[in-house]
Amino acid sequence: MAQFDLTSWMVQRVDEIDLALDQCLPTSAPEPLGEAMRYSVTNGGKRVRPLLALAACEAVNHDATENLSPMVRDAALRAGCAVELIHAYSLVHDDMPCMDDDVLRRGKPTVHVQFGEAQALLAGDALQAQAFDCLLSGDADIPGDWRLAWCRTLAGAAGAMGMAGGQGIDLASVGRPLDQPALEHMHALKTGALLRAAVSMGGLCGPIDAEVARALTTYGQRVGLAFQVVDDVLDVLSDTATLGKTAGKDAAANKPTFVSLLGLDPAKRYADRLIAEALGALDAAGLAEAHALRALAMHVVARTH
Amino acid sequence: MAQFDLTSWMVQRVDEIDLALDQCLPTSAPEPLGEAMRYSVTNGGKRVRPLLALAACEAVNHDATENLSPMVRDAALRAGCAVELIHAYSLVHDDMPCMDDDVLRRGKPTVHVQFGEAQALLAGDALQAQAFDCLLSGDADIPGDWRLAWCRTLAGAAGAMGMAGGQGIDLASVGRPLDQPALEHMHALKTGALLRAAVSMGGLCGPIDAEVARALTTYGQRVGLAFQVVDDVLDVLSDTATLGKTAGKDAAANKPTFVSLLGLDPAKRYADRLIAEALGALDAAGLAEAHALRALAMHVVARTH
Repeated sequence: MAQFDLTSWMVQRVDEIDLALDQCLPTSAPEPLGEAMRYSVTNGGKRVRPLLALAACEAVNHDATENLSPMVRDAALRAGCAVELIHAYSLVHDDMPCMDDDVLRRGKPTVHVQFGEAQALLAGDALQAQAFDCLLSGDADIPGDWRLAWCRTLAGAAGAMGMAGGQGIDLASVGRPLDQPALEHMHALKTGALLRAAVSMGGLCGPIDAEVARALTTYGQRVGLAFQVVDDVLDVLSDTATLGKTAGKDAAANKPTFVSLLGLDPAKRYADRLIAEALGALDAAGLAEAHALRALAMHVVARTH
Repeated sequence: MAQFDLTSWMVQRVDEIDLALDQCLPTSAPEPLGEAMRYSVTNGGKRVRPLLALAACEAVNHDATENLSPMVRDAALRAGCAVELIHAYSLVHDDMPCMDDDVLRRGKPTVHVQFGEAQALLAGDALQAQAFDCLLSGDADIPGDWRLAWCRTLAGAAGAMGMAGGQGIDLASVGRPLDQPALEHMHALKTGALLRAAVSMGGLCGPIDAEVARALTTYGQRVGLAFQVVDDVLDVLSDTATLGKTAGKDAAANKPTFVSLLGLDPAKRYADRLIAEALGALDAAGLAEAHALRALAMHVVARTH
């Protein structure tokens, strides 16, 4: 086939995702709660998690990528949007004064600055419930088994053994520098769990066997970790470029990063290796035509080159 | 049959519920997050919501109340425990400084006092995910349809059109006194939604038709509202008795209550009427032998007599 055009693939799907997210939000929630929820979700996010879900869905339906049934399309969008709603709630709560105390996100006042802390707390809480609601609504032909597996995956990825657990480790390790295995474990929960969930949940929207499911899990794990390694690399590069500093803000805050533990060039090589492993897992499971998944993985590391 | 002994019924079931709640919590969550979750759940609560779920399950299985299959018993416990986990998370978040700023609950330091605000926020977040996990685990013979209906009911009851929405209305109405319909709407969401969900979810654990489902919803709605009316009555009676004041703390805080809107005796009579309607709904749907549901409803108002 011709060269896969990731940019045009993403542009089309981000529009679909934004529309689906809008439809996943409650239409008549009490105000200002409903507005706070909408504000936090329509923040110009890159929609990485829903894109991964759609890419995984297309990978497991590769015979019909250009022509997915409306039910399958709706299913994959719901799976991706549910993960995005969990991600959105986590950002609202993360920004609050008792956590990171951030007043700006993507150049706009954070939710608690705009709506007050109490409504922000509730908006995050309500978004988590809405994520599950999203998995249980929509096309009546979506198989119940898909919905059950999604809900199980999402609950695990969001909770104490997933994202919330990773945040808890991060908080509890202030002043106790982590070594590389501990840092990887923290990230595997804090950001990795939702990324893996997005890939797995998208992959559930089609014919899938245990081997493919395992390959998608490996892909999600490697790409999720590479994403974090690349963030650490970019943190240093951008600070060095724009501020003339050689250390990034995480290093300045005495938090270990992959760059502080490994060094800059080894960290870049580590990200490259993780992406190669992600692609290898797809190949080994016969997902060689998973164009969007492959391109998304390479896109992650391309940012450092 | 002999007089139904609610106290002994409750004592037995509270022990079962406490054990089931313990088993619904993650066993290897990162600390102190896991401990904060456990602390908030094992707080000596009265377990009203799980009791309602078990009572509803026994009502719809009235031929086998004394001999429910282990699967049905596990199912009803899970349904009730999931609602209790949502209730527990809401108390953790409610107590935080940006909400009610309470330092004690049931005589013990609140979660944020004991574990810090950030871990309290995360513990609440993780408990919500755990509630859904609880509905998706356990006996493999629990029908997928029950689990799907539970998850849908719980997501609706917890979110922006349920509990979180009611809390949002409560916050947004500070300084704007509510009239009776608005007060009832607020309570119907803030506390009523979870109580109704507990009854409905317990009722899903057995043979149920649309008429019985509607009767359980009516029962849950009336009992939930009566519960709040009685709380307002008790607030005044206990303050008057123990403090020599004639107005309760809600009235002092200039928040409308059923007593401030209706007066003390009419509020008591309103609670009586709501309970009569709850019992009437059970009778009309052929649930005349729903002994535990009937006794629980009468127990609610007995507190004022």
